[in-house]
Amino acid sequence: ANTMRSKVSGLGNMVWRLGADDPRKVVHGLKVGLALALVSLFYYTRPLYDGVGGAAMWAVMTVVVVFEFTVGGCLYKGINRGIATLTAGALAIGVHWIANKSGETFEPIIRSASVFMLASAATFSRFIPTIKIKFDYGITIFILTFSLVAVSGYRVDKLIELAEQRLSTVAIGIFICFLVAIFAFPVWAGSDLHLLITRNMDKLADSLEGSVDDYFSNDQTSEKEEAPSKKSQAYKCVLNAKASEDSLANLSKWEPPHGRFSFRHPWSQYQNIGTAMRYCAYCVEALNGCINSEIPTPEFTKKQLSDICIQLSSDCSKVLKDSSNSIKSMQRSGSIDFLVEEMNNGVQELHDRLTELQTDDMSLREVLPLIAAAS
Amino acid sequence: ANTMRSKVSGLGNMVWRLGADDPRKVVHGLKVGLALALVSLFYYTRPLYDGVGGAAMWAVMTVVVVFEFTVGGCLYKGINRGIATLTAGALAIGVHWIANKSGETFEPIIRSASVFMLASAATFSRFIPTIKIKFDYGITIFILTFSLVAVSGYRVDKLIELAEQRLSTVAIGIFICFLVAIFAFPVWAGSDLHLLITRNMDKLADSLEGSVDDYFSNDQTSEKEEAPSKKSQAYKCVLNAKASEDSLANLSKWEPPHGRFSFRHPWSQYQNIGTAMRYCAYCVEALNGCINSEIPTPEFTKKQLSDICIQLSSDCSKVLKDSSNSIKSMQRSGSIDFLVEEMNNGVQELHDRLTELQTDDMSLREVLPLIAAAS
Repeated sequence: ANTMRSKVSGLGNMVWRLGADDPRKVVHGLKVGLALALVSLFYYTRPLYDGVGGAAMWAVMTVVVVFEFTVGGCLYKGINRGIATLTAGALAIGVHWIANKSGETFEPIIRSASVFMLASAATFSRFIPTIKIKFDYGITIFILTFSLVAVSGYRVDKLIELAEQRLSTVAIGIFICFLVAIFAFPVWAGSDLHLLITRNMDKLADSLEGSVDDYFSNDQTSEKEEAPSKKSQAYKCVLNAKASEDSLANLSKWEPPHGRFSFRHPWSQYQNIGTAMRYCAYCVEALNGCINSEIPTPEFTKKQLSDICIQLSSDCSKVLKDSSNSIKSMQRSGSIDFLVEEMNNGVQELHDRLTELQTDDMSLREVLPLIAAAS
Repeated sequence: ANTMRSKVSGLGNMVWRLGADDPRKVVHGLKVGLALALVSLFYYTRPLYDGVGGAAMWAVMTVVVVFEFTVGGCLYKGINRGIATLTAGALAIGVHWIANKSGETFEPIIRSASVFMLASAATFSRFIPTIKIKFDYGITIFILTFSLVAVSGYRVDKLIELAEQRLSTVAIGIFICFLVAIFAFPVWAGSDLHLLITRNMDKLADSLEGSVDDYFSNDQTSEKEEAPSKKSQAYKCVLNAKASEDSLANLSKWEPPHGRFSFRHPWSQYQNIGTAMRYCAYCVEALNGCINSEIPTPEFTKKQLSDICIQLSSDCSKVLKDSSNSIKSMQRSGSIDFLVEEMNNGVQELHDRLTELQTDDMSLREVLPLIAAAS
């Protein structure tokens, strides 16, 4: 019973922290509840319910599946659902018209054959990368609507009316979703992406400096070696950020201008910066591998290089922090050219001093102009 | 018109290659078509249609949304949908019973308040990582079913019958999906994961060897430097494989025993191997950075180290290939201990010969025992 209790309290703690760390998640839950409560009004008020001919069910379904955490996700799903319902419905009514005229025997064959062919082709098209990124959800809805309308035409008499009702209720559901998502505490995918990139860049700068410091200091205080400073481990977030960067960038493209982000903000540039940062993080990871390696570097080499390496890493991290600040403020930094040059001088100096040392900082040098250019 | 034509033919080519590279994708499209054609039989045969009381629509919907590329994905969605529909339906009928007894004024309030609270709580619970991985889809369906049943109880008289019909048609849809997914050319997530890991391991071995060879040979034939051998770039797949590994491993856990994979196959071990391989790939990436760096290493150092480094990298890649083979055959390799020892000797030798050279191969040494242990 004790382990059970500790498990429950552990879960409770976790949920509490989840909410406390990012209150937007709690707000998101409440927003979904609000949207559903709004849509349920269609059931309670007689004129509204009769207006959509009892098909209010579709509005509820639309709200449940379209409402996403970010505004971009909501717009992506809503627009996809709207367009897919419209085109699939029109196509299905065309097939229905043909099937209806072709007599008893051929009718089910035509219906099923058209569903079979369209569903197969649409499913296959989901494997095409560009379609997958932009219209994956739309294709599901396309297959769904087409199958429903084309097949149920066999049993339902007033098919056009049914399709019209479905379309208008879906539109109502989408409208309610957009309303709640955009006007009640909106969560913009674009701002999230912007924040993710700048925060990761700061982390990278910290851990670059931290690892080099660790490397050159861990012999004096041997116990410190056991626990690498927290700062120097921050780059690990950068390594695994690819998936979230990609999805946020894709969703950002659906969002209207907001805040400091104008129309056609170059969202895919953020992905390039992310890639450059990951490349930089790989080097930090390799550097960390050397630090933790069991074979120690001889003391005299270390001492000889200590000052210049620490200087170089702090230059590097200054460049990173400066570019992160210039992204934050969305202005070209005045000092970046100077800082990059200083860093390059440092690299050259290091190289002159010890030509045979293959330090990883060399590869950093190639990455940084890229980052600076991308910002 | 010419650019238009070339675009269309480019697209055609791309689609053709997509199908030719992985015919299972074409087969998947046909399977979805087949499942939908099967489910449409419910509309054409009068006894079947009457048996489900005209609610055949839900079976069609279930097939469209549950049918996934892999068997694991299909089972994950099907089981989630089944359980969620059952529990949400039962809960909603309970709420309906209470709301029905509480009089005109309170009825809509109780219904909407319960929907608001449950939807908010369920949406928030999706942010808990373990629930997100295992039950994300189930929670969507839970909210959907609960809202539909609880709210439409206000207008529909025979609610229990409606819920029963919905449950049985959903079950039919899930059953058809499972049938087609498992028995018509199944695509197992587990086998895919297995193949992905072994193939990536081979690629890593190739590119490790390739990069080191490139590094020591590119000065003799200077033009080769421009085009690094294709082999040595193969490790890039490993860098970005995390997302697909994770999703395949999660889906594999839903699959029944198949082929050489017994019940409770340790799927999460594959994720550990993947992480170790990515760590290894970071080192290769850093090594490549050194190769492409503008500052060349002095000739004499290179010559001195050339033979031992090439030897070491080939040992390393032998170890990788051996573990990949032992994973493929699912047997402990007899030669792996010997190979690892040989490689470790090589590392020691390299270290003895040149203590001040911080070659990246050192960090490789730490990774490999991990890989060997994980296999």
